Amino acid sequence: MFRAIIDITLRPSILDPQGKAVAHAVATLGIRGVQGVRMGKHVEVTFDGLTEEEAQRATEEICKKLLANPVMEDYRFVVEKKA
Amino acid sequence: MFRAIIDITLRPSILDPQGKAVAHAVATLGIRGVQGVRMGKHVEVTFDGLTEEEAQRATEEICKKLLANPVMEDYRFVVEKKA
Repeated sequence: MFRAIIDITLRPSILDPQGKAVAHAVATLGIRGVQGVRMGKHVEVTFDGLTEEEAQRATEEICKKLLANPVMEDYRFVVEKKA
Repeated sequence: MFRAIIDITLRPSILDPQGKAVAHAVATLGIRGVQGVRMGKHVEVTFDGLTEEEAQRATEEICKKLLANPVMEDYRFVVEKKA
């Protein structure tokens, strides 16, 4: 079994109001030194009965067709063996 | 400058309807071999004017007090030097 760990982040040029809200809340808590916060999505996909290469290809397809908006978001992933 | 890369995931015992919906959509796309999908949050926090240790401590505090719900979620993070 393999597991894909996917992180989807907003492209740097895209405004992130949710991140701004978190940065503001951090300041309200009295935590100093925070320059910026960017929010994204973390997705874990478990595959069964696929080879590592097939899992890589399936993950790429899932990211492109389903999870990431290519205009606004970047994605990166690793596929690892799952015990 | 340091950057904390934080991943927040639902605890294994917590149901994840959003992940179930993605798994269903994946099957609809005709992609086979997916056993399960779990959704989480990915957060990047940039620090300025802090040492690496201070950034570690600040990140821990931000996760505990703000980002993660300790009843339902786990978090893990790395702090890395940012160019």
